Amino acid sequence: METPTNVTIKGILGLLMANVDGEKKKRVISVGMGDPTAFSCFTTTSVARDAVRDALDSQKFNGYSPTVGLPQTRRAISEYLSINLPYKLSPDDVYITAGCTQAIEVAISILARPNANILVPKPGFPIYELCAAFRNVEIRHVDLLPENGWEVDLDAVDALADHNTVAIVIINPGNPCGNVYSFQHLKKIAEMAKKHKIVVIADEVYGHLAFGSNPFVPMGVFGSMVPVLTLGSLSKRWIVPGWRLGWFVTTDPNAIFKNAKTVERLKKYFDICGGPATFIQAAVPRILEETSDAFFTKTLNILKHTSDLCVNKINTIPCLTCPTKPQGSMAVMVKLNVSLLTDIKDDIDFCFKLAKEESVILLPGLTVGLKNWVRITFAAEPSALEEALDRVKSFYQRHSYEEKFQFGPS
Amino acid sequence: METPTNVTIKGILGLLMANVDGEKKKRVISVGMGDPTAFSCFTTTSVARDAVRDALDSQKFNGYSPTVGLPQTRRAISEYLSINLPYKLSPDDVYITAGCTQAIEVAISILARPNANILVPKPGFPIYELCAAFRNVEIRHVDLLPENGWEVDLDAVDALADHNTVAIVIINPGNPCGNVYSFQHLKKIAEMAKKHKIVVIADEVYGHLAFGSNPFVPMGVFGSMVPVLTLGSLSKRWIVPGWRLGWFVTTDPNAIFKNAKTVERLKKYFDICGGPATFIQAAVPRILEETSDAFFTKTLNILKHTSDLCVNKINTIPCLTCPTKPQGSMAVMVKLNVSLLTDIKDDIDFCFKLAKEESVILLPGLTVGLKNWVRITFAAEPSALEEALDRVKSFYQRHSYEEKFQFGPS
Repeated sequence: METPTNVTIKGILGLLMANVDGEKKKRVISVGMGDPTAFSCFTTTSVARDAVRDALDSQKFNGYSPTVGLPQTRRAISEYLSINLPYKLSPDDVYITAGCTQAIEVAISILARPNANILVPKPGFPIYELCAAFRNVEIRHVDLLPENGWEVDLDAVDALADHNTVAIVIINPGNPCGNVYSFQHLKKIAEMAKKHKIVVIADEVYGHLAFGSNPFVPMGVFGSMVPVLTLGSLSKRWIVPGWRLGWFVTTDPNAIFKNAKTVERLKKYFDICGGPATFIQAAVPRILEETSDAFFTKTLNILKHTSDLCVNKINTIPCLTCPTKPQGSMAVMVKLNVSLLTDIKDDIDFCFKLAKEESVILLPGLTVGLKNWVRITFAAEPSALEEALDRVKSFYQRHSYEEKFQFGPS
Repeated sequence: METPTNVTIKGILGLLMANVDGEKKKRVISVGMGDPTAFSCFTTTSVARDAVRDALDSQKFNGYSPTVGLPQTRRAISEYLSINLPYKLSPDDVYITAGCTQAIEVAISILARPNANILVPKPGFPIYELCAAFRNVEIRHVDLLPENGWEVDLDAVDALADHNTVAIVIINPGNPCGNVYSFQHLKKIAEMAKKHKIVVIADEVYGHLAFGSNPFVPMGVFGSMVPVLTLGSLSKRWIVPGWRLGWFVTTDPNAIFKNAKTVERLKKYFDICGGPATFIQAAVPRILEETSDAFFTKTLNILKHTSDLCVNKINTIPCLTCPTKPQGSMAVMVKLNVSLLTDIKDDIDFCFKLAKEESVILLPGLTVGLKNWVRITFAAEPSALEEALDRVKSFYQRHSYEEKFQFGPS
């Protein structure tokens, strides 16, 4: 097996962190990663913690679960997802995974066959490319259109899809762009997928984290039109990415994808998967049932506030532009204009120098497919985010031509 | 991707369970699966539970861990394993996995390349074959010799290994046979692997569960001679298979396998893996440090007792023979002589009729590679195990020729 050459987000963040200058004694602020648990305003609900603790203490869930997941967990998730669908999922549609990462791995592996290709958004989430490389699946990039709310370039889909295309990946709410797609746009995606007879991999790990004008519409709403594989987890909405509790769901009421042979293959695939801890699975029904709306609302209010703060601050930094205000998820893509900077080559150079000089970590856009962009995670403590962006502004001022002309040596 | 045709243990146990005759109102006793948590005498130590609960309650471990595992967890496991080795492992040698299942999946996937083959024991553990099928790796079976304590047929290894052979799998203490290999036998395996320049995949998920005359010797003892990939988990020794906390370890002090390129590939592979919950990982250092010897001794004493009980009972059932007394793990392979039975075709037929008539579940040997054998898990409540085997005896008596000649209709 050849090593894929992709750069991983965690890999580059590690390098950036190593580039921080400890001598400066500045508090390191990382808004490069999508893990809000680093900030105390993002804490999970006690409902979730109590449910897991009780399941552990009961001593009933130290043994193996079925490899596809506990029946009560599959049932609870099928009911949770069905609330927003025009039909009812069956517990058998739900397979429990070790976080959304494993759900992605299952989706790619189960669709892999010789010469297969998959359409993935650009910018996107690098795990798809890494997975595809390990499973010998070809990746074809479909541009998201920044000037159009990061909608999928449907003409590109039409041009790229061929008889070897097995799926298109849609991440909504979007990472890294912060987009939330309208019902109409999702419908067009479904129609295009139907035309090309391909499956939609709907990555909804940020499901329900929508705080703008577009409500969150799950792709499964169009499951009767085109088979949808819905991927999700507790990670983001419940702010527990470390619990590794995700799901892979066949949202396919007409059973176009999930024929007997595919279901058998899926079940066997889960036998080699590992999966999440049984007692965490056992806690899921209670977590889904008892979490209060107030908890969700609180999270959305913070995200709305921090995303506004982020956009407003960015608007004061001339070398950065935010083409579309984020409406969901926890991150936003920001365009970097290096021509305004004297000694910055590109986004990688920008992020490394920023880490060194300001102890601020942003994610270079190249790692998600867009050179000379940066991804900023706004799921951060407001004061930390504010300080981080103030430091970015100072950095800009020190490196801008304007600055040079005003105070330059010549 | 084609569906592998292997029968899985959980699959067949499900079918057997469905074949139980509910009308009989007999308590179902399953000694078909390797999950002792179903029996109250096999309960984990409060040390482990407290450590996990405290890590959960601390709220410090709700976020992502590095995909290869938390540093403190890697360090603790490297120290734990180094105790029994003539050299010291580095924390970087240890990769944390979602149970031993994921460690197997990583080992097979990372070794996969076009035309590769792997030598696996027969009888063996079906996950290896399932994994290999999904990763397009050829399986070659090496017989274990029942009359010789289930030692590996080294002549067969010598004959089967070729330039496409990448590894040999050694399960010690052995599932499904209950073998514990001597230092001398493991050394011969290492020499043979060295001769053929292949890696040893040492499945030590039952590590330290040895209660016979041979002490447990980890394969890594020969790591200076041949690169060893050590797979293990908390599952069996701590009786928490549902916690999904395992490890994949490069026990390779001469860095024959773990060159820079392989390590980079391994790290990237872990980026797509999912892995276990961060708070369970965080509990590992305390679990390894604070678990008392008394807990381990208690488990070994019960296993010694139940394995003796199992063998003694089997000796009273003429159609069953135990060629070697188990010395470790939680299961034993028992030979079935169908010629003594009037209406039993084979091991599958035996197990299905036994389930129906006696509500006792044994695992047909075919699922682990040996037709007309059965696997019995002796990690069970002594009274339940005794009753199960008494019922097997009644079953034998009803179906034997002897019975027929004594009380037959003619």
